[in-house]
Amino acid sequence: MISRKMDGIVRSGSAIRAMFEEGKRLAQIYGKENVFDFSLGNPSVPAPSKVNEAIKSIVDSVDAMTLHGYMTNSGYESVRQTVANNLNRRFNTDYSARNIVMTVGAAGGLNVALKAIVDPGDEIIVFAPYFGEYDNYISNVDGKAVVIPPNPPSFQPNIDALEKAVGVRTKAVIVNSPNNPTGAVYGAETLKSLGDLLRRKSKEKGEAIYLISDEPYREIIYDGNKCEYVADYYDDTIVGYSYSKSLSLPGERIGYLAISDKAEDSENLLSACNVATRILGFVNAPSLQQLVVERCIDEKTDVSAYDKNRRLLYSALTQYGFECVKPQGAFYLFVKCPIEESVFIAKAKEYNLLLVGGKSFACEGYVRIAYCVDYDMIERALPAFKKLAEATIGNR
Amino acid sequence: MISRKMDGIVRSGSAIRAMFEEGKRLAQIYGKENVFDFSLGNPSVPAPSKVNEAIKSIVDSVDAMTLHGYMTNSGYESVRQTVANNLNRRFNTDYSARNIVMTVGAAGGLNVALKAIVDPGDEIIVFAPYFGEYDNYISNVDGKAVVIPPNPPSFQPNIDALEKAVGVRTKAVIVNSPNNPTGAVYGAETLKSLGDLLRRKSKEKGEAIYLISDEPYREIIYDGNKCEYVADYYDDTIVGYSYSKSLSLPGERIGYLAISDKAEDSENLLSACNVATRILGFVNAPSLQQLVVERCIDEKTDVSAYDKNRRLLYSALTQYGFECVKPQGAFYLFVKCPIEESVFIAKAKEYNLLLVGGKSFACEGYVRIAYCVDYDMIERALPAFKKLAEATIGNR
Repeated sequence: MISRKMDGIVRSGSAIRAMFEEGKRLAQIYGKENVFDFSLGNPSVPAPSKVNEAIKSIVDSVDAMTLHGYMTNSGYESVRQTVANNLNRRFNTDYSARNIVMTVGAAGGLNVALKAIVDPGDEIIVFAPYFGEYDNYISNVDGKAVVIPPNPPSFQPNIDALEKAVGVRTKAVIVNSPNNPTGAVYGAETLKSLGDLLRRKSKEKGEAIYLISDEPYREIIYDGNKCEYVADYYDDTIVGYSYSKSLSLPGERIGYLAISDKAEDSENLLSACNVATRILGFVNAPSLQQLVVERCIDEKTDVSAYDKNRRLLYSALTQYGFECVKPQGAFYLFVKCPIEESVFIAKAKEYNLLLVGGKSFACEGYVRIAYCVDYDMIERALPAFKKLAEATIGNR
Repeated sequence: MISRKMDGIVRSGSAIRAMFEEGKRLAQIYGKENVFDFSLGNPSVPAPSKVNEAIKSIVDSVDAMTLHGYMTNSGYESVRQTVANNLNRRFNTDYSARNIVMTVGAAGGLNVALKAIVDPGDEIIVFAPYFGEYDNYISNVDGKAVVIPPNPPSFQPNIDALEKAVGVRTKAVIVNSPNNPTGAVYGAETLKSLGDLLRRKSKEKGEAIYLISDEPYREIIYDGNKCEYVADYYDDTIVGYSYSKSLSLPGERIGYLAISDKAEDSENLLSACNVATRILGFVNAPSLQQLVVERCIDEKTDVSAYDKNRRLLYSALTQYGFECVKPQGAFYLFVKCPIEESVFIAKAKEYNLLLVGGKSFACEGYVRIAYCVDYDMIERALPAFKKLAEATIGNR
């Protein structure tokens, strides 16, 4: 028998699996080109060609024992120094190798960070809507998720609500900018307010409330804007990063945590992350991919394809009458459901449109449309979206 | 502040770190070639050349979106089928792709398996001596480790003691053959008794007691012996494997779990492992290395180098008067301390010999000597071992 906890998770997870199966079923009936799957956050831009060149060059030049061998659990020193230098060049940081822990993607990194700081019953504050996996990550360490209600239409974090939510058991706050699922990007003013509040609350508490900044979409940003670096606004920040989106390497599981020397208890915290990487069973981030990151650190993401998709889909959907804020980053549109969420999703499916409900992000009444897909598919899907609008907005 | 739980682990972990620092300190004083580090289980044989050839060929031939992309959390279907076929050819198994979950090494796999089955307070039985990380893995899921005392000199699992240890909260038993740290290999008779007992106890309990078989050393076996396949003796077995040792890829983090359809609740159990892979933050085993495994599945480990080391070290140490059983697998010698363990380890350090105490494996009064090192280093170290024998065995 599986555990009671997992039994619940396996059962509740079956909705997404059902959607996946539904997609396959629909493709068999209508043909793959007539089914429009907007449910997955899987990059549609391939990895830069330099990645594969780097892999071949590394394999040819690095000694096999180093290339495929164990290193310290936090990762190769030279890789961590390269990551530190890259961040220091771009932001107001002064990291060195010791401040960086290479991780098995951002998902691995968040689990490591939570393992390092959370005791059973500690509270972790999250802003709805948020990536549903946070609930599982927090539960893995017997923490308690405290959810701040959604703040539409801007979906900027509600600082007043945060002030009320912070309590004596608050251990950390998680932010995610650019945001999955809304595409919102937190501006300098917001981050300044957030930092001010957390400094004041940490002082009251007598120890730091850590800010965990989940940043896999940091480089995917539009309209010539720049993404503020969250840790520049609050020293007690644990930055979690992934190359899944920025280098299109989601399957390779490579990312890092960055913790400044200015963070409270930083030496212990970095040691704890090093140890947590080991005891959670990651042991270390995949060695070859660490070396790839070292060589490809300055590769730029080609966000133009995502931007093109964003413009087409946003202008079409708003023209059809749907309500949503134009996303400033990531590759998701978060659209208000004109009718009850589950009915809307079922209706969308009738037009072969596969969308994920806001309920999965603790924000009922919305759908997330992942536009990291082929432009052609969006073009083919537009008539379906139009019909969906006519069938649902009229019936509001 | 880091969590109280991690604080304890970070502090207790400092003994190994201190050993590492000690090694560096000694190397500076005496020269690297005069310090003999037998503390690490890091393969000293490089990966087969076919591994790097496979990497280059995969990069050149596989579409980047497939190569570096997401797949189902359990891994690529074709890779899992290849693993299944390989096991079916060698053992009495009838796995197919659905029975295999690709994992981030065996450490990742064990964490996934435990997450899938353990509720807080469930008991997991381990046989001392055992890999100390099991304690952390069990603690990660709030399980309780129940330790069966060591059974020297053979270090075969004590089935009578197991019978007494099984209780109503027993959820699983962990075995590890070939064994770290003893090098013991469990024979057919032992596994038959173990299977018989667990079948009886599962019947009494009314649900399966799972046997978790941690098999990273399965292919490292000597004297023409073969390694029994644990799951052939007990259907409710969760096999955990890693290519860290057999393909010398410890840094790449690639392995698998195998669960037979004959295991109780196998469909749920496999779903739970798939989900646990995701929610623990592994998401999936590194994609490129999965494809490497697919192409290199029939590569044989060159165990002759380890065997040469084993023969030299075993014959020398026993000649000097040390007591140990000749290991039949893995790459460790487990030697009885002639004097109190910590004093013996300190004495060894005086001769620049770095050994790990049995205490780290819940078996005080022994040292583990990892002979996955250069043959030359063993030759250079023999005079030091001889002096250590003279200094300690005489003073028994």
